[in-house]
Amino acid sequence: MSQPSLTLSTFLIPAIDRVLANLSHVLAKGEAYAKETGIDPVQLVQARLAPDMMTLAGQVQRASDTAKGAAARLAGIDAPSFADDEQDFAQLQDRIRRTREFIASVDLAKLEGCEGRVISFQAGPYPLTFTGTSYARDFVLPNLHFHATTAYGILRHNGVPVGKLDYLGPIN
Amino acid sequence: MSQPSLTLSTFLIPAIDRVLANLSHVLAKGEAYAKETGIDPVQLVQARLAPDMMTLAGQVQRASDTAKGAAARLAGIDAPSFADDEQDFAQLQDRIRRTREFIASVDLAKLEGCEGRVISFQAGPYPLTFTGTSYARDFVLPNLHFHATTAYGILRHNGVPVGKLDYLGPIN
Repeated sequence: MSQPSLTLSTFLIPAIDRVLANLSHVLAKGEAYAKETGIDPVQLVQARLAPDMMTLAGQVQRASDTAKGAAARLAGIDAPSFADDEQDFAQLQDRIRRTREFIASVDLAKLEGCEGRVISFQAGPYPLTFTGTSYARDFVLPNLHFHATTAYGILRHNGVPVGKLDYLGPIN
Repeated sequence: MSQPSLTLSTFLIPAIDRVLANLSHVLAKGEAYAKETGIDPVQLVQARLAPDMMTLAGQVQRASDTAKGAAARLAGIDAPSFADDEQDFAQLQDRIRRTREFIASVDLAKLEGCEGRVISFQAGPYPLTFTGTSYARDFVLPNLHFHATTAYGILRHNGVPVGKLDYLGPIN
């Protein structure tokens, strides 16, 4: 029996959106915890797991960049540039909302055949070259989960009552 | 132009193996750091980001379970059961090695058509049902990265000089 073949449109794009939706949910629990306990929410937004790691805000910004960059590169279009000036939970939620809106606006027809296309870009000092498939598999998903899980870990380390099911999101 | 279609054999299985290889590399940096600084390595193996989170050893064990469970379920075979008794870096490395060996031993022909197959199992108290594709996308990869990134975060929080490139591994 033949199965519908996987494509990055049907595998990667929903996977990315799901990580962002769950990250939004985890951040909402962080904000609620600050309210309940009287902690200044900015203390959570600026928290880090190590002095030379990025803050919670930085983790969300990099997750956003990875997500919108992936949809844009695979479609051969430009991603919107966001200012990295988020300072509270509401602004981080707005960043995630705008990121998801951009991804939802991408014409998936433009991703047709992207699995085998060459994807080249500069990541800081590093010139990187992938196929669409290796970009999704070896760069986008690891990067996105790295930042989303680190955001989760920052909140969890600071007492926010989140569990792995918050990270995984609703199943079925 | 038609492109070779993606399958879970060619997308998920290498993605899983890559996370495990990079996790092994990050753990090796943790062990080296303990040696250089004179920290008791067991302090790192037993470290947590929060008192009610799993230790570094627990994170590696759950990453291993997620990885071998995925290869086994998609192939319709049983995964080997490991004892969760690792207490030092060498034992954690051995667990990762055995996990990768099992995955490499799985006959990928058995994964043919797994993308559309129903995958049902019990995760603690939760009965879960997926297709092969949604299992890979919504459960396996998020779970695996969650534990691997948390292992990274535990070491990074404890001073181990790892960076995101250690987590992502060699590109190209």
